[in-house]
Amino acid sequence: MSPLAADASPAPAPRFDTISFLSDYGLADEFVGVVKAVIRTIAPGVTVLDVTHEVPAHDVRAGSLTLARSIQYLPVGVVLAVVDPGVGSDRRALAVEAGEGDDAAVLVGPDNGLLAPAVALAGGARRAVALTNTDYHLAAPGPTFAGRDIFAPAAAHLALGVDLEELGEIVDPYSLLPAIVPLSRVEGASVVSEVLWVDRFGNAQLNVGPDDIAAMGDRVTLQIGDRQARVARRADSYADLKPGEVGLVVDSYGLVAIALNRRAATEELRVGAGDAVTLMAAE
Amino acid sequence: MSPLAADASPAPAPRFDTISFLSDYGLADEFVGVVKAVIRTIAPGVTVLDVTHEVPAHDVRAGSLTLARSIQYLPVGVVLAVVDPGVGSDRRALAVEAGEGDDAAVLVGPDNGLLAPAVALAGGARRAVALTNTDYHLAAPGPTFAGRDIFAPAAAHLALGVDLEELGEIVDPYSLLPAIVPLSRVEGASVVSEVLWVDRFGNAQLNVGPDDIAAMGDRVTLQIGDRQARVARRADSYADLKPGEVGLVVDSYGLVAIALNRRAATEELRVGAGDAVTLMAAE
Amino acid sequence: MSPLAADASPAPAPRFDTISFLSDYGLADEFVGVVKAVIRTIAPGVTVLDVTHEVPAHDVRAGSLTLARSIQYLPVGVVLAVVDPGVGSDRRALAVEAGEGDDAAVLVGPDNGLLAPAVALAGGARRAVALTNTDYHLAAPGPTFAGRDIFAPAAAHLALGVDLEELGEIVDPYSLLPAIVPLSRVEGASVVSEVLWVDRFGNAQLNVGPDDIAAMGDRVTLQIGDRQARVARRADSYADLKPGEVGLVVDSYGLVAIALNRRAATEELRVGAGDAVTLMAAE
Repeated sequence: MSPLAADASPAPAPRFDTISFLSDYGLADEFVGVVKAVIRTIAPGVTVLDVTHEVPAHDVRAGSLTLARSIQYLPVGVVLAVVDPGVGSDRRALAVEAGEGDDAAVLVGPDNGLLAPAVALAGGARRAVALTNTDYHLAAPGPTFAGRDIFAPAAAHLALGVDLEELGEIVDPYSLLPAIVPLSRVEGASVVSEVLWVDRFGNAQLNVGPDDIAAMGDRVTLQIGDRQARVARRADSYADLKPGEVGLVVDSYGLVAIALNRRAATEELRVGAGDAVTLMAAE
Repeated sequence: MSPLAADASPAPAPRFDTISFLSDYGLADEFVGVVKAVIRTIAPGVTVLDVTHEVPAHDVRAGSLTLARSIQYLPVGVVLAVVDPGVGSDRRALAVEAGEGDDAAVLVGPDNGLLAPAVALAGGARRAVALTNTDYHLAAPGPTFAGRDIFAPAAAHLALGVDLEELGEIVDPYSLLPAIVPLSRVEGASVVSEVLWVDRFGNAQLNVGPDDIAAMGDRVTLQIGDRQARVARRADSYADLKPGEVGLVVDSYGLVAIALNRRAATEELRVGAGDAVTLMAAE
Repeated sequence: MSPLAADASPAPAPRFDTISFLSDYGLADEFVGVVKAVIRTIAPGVTVLDVTHEVPAHDVRAGSLTLARSIQYLPVGVVLAVVDPGVGSDRRALAVEAGEGDDAAVLVGPDNGLLAPAVALAGGARRAVALTNTDYHLAAPGPTFAGRDIFAPAAAHLALGVDLEELGEIVDPYSLLPAIVPLSRVEGASVVSEVLWVDRFGNAQLNVGPDDIAAMGDRVTLQIGDRQARVARRADSYADLKPGEVGLVVDSYGLVAIALNRRAATEELRVGAGDAVTLMAAE
């Protein structure tokens, strides 16, 4: 049964009415539109919710962190995530069932670490398959657009209620490639951390919770790489900071972020995702 | 009643089927996706219409002008607008009812001038509340994402038919912070104006209507800041201009714009939003 | 009957439930949002599927190629395409019926070559009208936003089931302005080609199929403009290439693309859309 044949039969109510979709496809080309067109042709009653498509090209780490930040807010349903530098290689294409009841989700994407943190946050993998059943692939003139030809049809059919095991061979749910999520560490009176993410407003999220630096008090020295140290003040929100003042704010995900009021911390401090930042109490 | 509890009850037909959504969140991060996910979880039958999310970060003026240009075209329903540099401060979070019948709208956003011009164009505020009822907030790990935690649940519940006054304390609808909308002025034979907006195609919209310059004839001198004056020709459309010719065209919103045919006026003339432009009849 | 009057009548099931929408409006301004708002006001039950709105401004060639790549994947329904440097001139505004049954599509847009390749791929034009019936236009303060005032109402009414011929004067379906689609040519043992498109990942699609270079073997010399020639290796996918190796891969549309593994070929080779590339067997 081809996906287009499935389309011709009268549509039952879908199992899930939403497919949340994240990718590094960008919005300049038609990639996102074509994936959504394939989904709509197979599953016309299903809505696609765009998480973001501007994950930096091929940046699996950034994609996995974005998905992990979002997953708890996504509607019950299918999550389609494609950041896939290994497309066309022998990396597996997966669908993974996680969670139960109100938290149930089926995540679809490449097995390269992209899905792993979100699967864990969604309750852990219960079942997983490799998307090897070519009856559910689109016939394609080339091997390089798995989003369109493999992942989108799988997501659409899962939303319609096709059982996971129809889509391919069962694989060990513990065999998913893990993501490399950097952890902060304590060194004496310091915490050695890493910038996880820089957002549009120039706030730099660290892999540090407020408890990790509670003992440091209100003024914290930031050592970014080998640059001159800066003193930051703990604040409740960006708006509490004075102009030009560097702050440490608990961000909307509960992690500590370096911030300036109405200015980009990243421009002022020249800090980017992946940079090392050491925090210690200011004297 | 938490928003998620509301979600569990059987869904009645929503009062409004559309939430129009404008922000400065950009599309690179997951902010827009997460706000839409929160709305969809609370109000699955409601469609979110994206107006734009690329308002320059923290630029309340640009956001208020964009919303004012759009409001007359938006479907009856809820309008969610978030450009919120004061998030986490004591600026109020509001929902405002405006207009009646086919023009009815409920606008949701921060009280910083963003909503005021659109509220006026929609018929004026009839009722307003501060979104202080925490039963309709999402529990949040940090205070800095009001779009997700306060505005999105409010918009979703309003679309479902929850009465405005359920969401918080009634406030004086005349107490909304007004926007600073620049007005042009006549000085002798000149009109002193300001660039309101530069669009993707490089057209620079002025706060000047065609009547304001009708007496100047077909050739108008433009003095931009202290640069060398340029002569522009009145034209009916961009396509009427010759290559390299600077034109003044009545744009699609009925205001006068500086334009070049198939070229960006803003590159040729180095003019940007907020710049002063003086117009007078060319000799 | 004005579009807004149409809106007031009870809504029958639409003829088509999807309008696919491509433009060069970009996402920074509210243009896309306003067009979708007009559609939703007229045809509330119709979903708009965004193909892309980041076609380079006024680039009809790029838009027509993007639409041609996408058309086979778009759902049955209306296709709205607006890249319209001649807006306000006497270029015609068209609606064109193409294909039949599962391939039926009505394409709406300017008559400037944008639609022609997609119409041909969709089975050829069966009927066409110029959108001259002002009863189906929005009243507008200026002549420069045909997407909002002419094309969007036409697309919405076509989706609702209004007959094509209601919208304006019938025109000869063979009178559509053709697109200029560059063809590659054989010169002795060489193929002289052109870069059709550079995608987000920096892959440069050529107007060359795999059969055209089958006789050249696995190693192909690329002469790009007058730069130093490079040798590229035929490969099955991007992932098959070694770091730094230049490859020729059959892309997801079945054409040959210049590619590097996880790097942008366009940066490495400084090649862009429209550039000439000559291919011949490497020695």
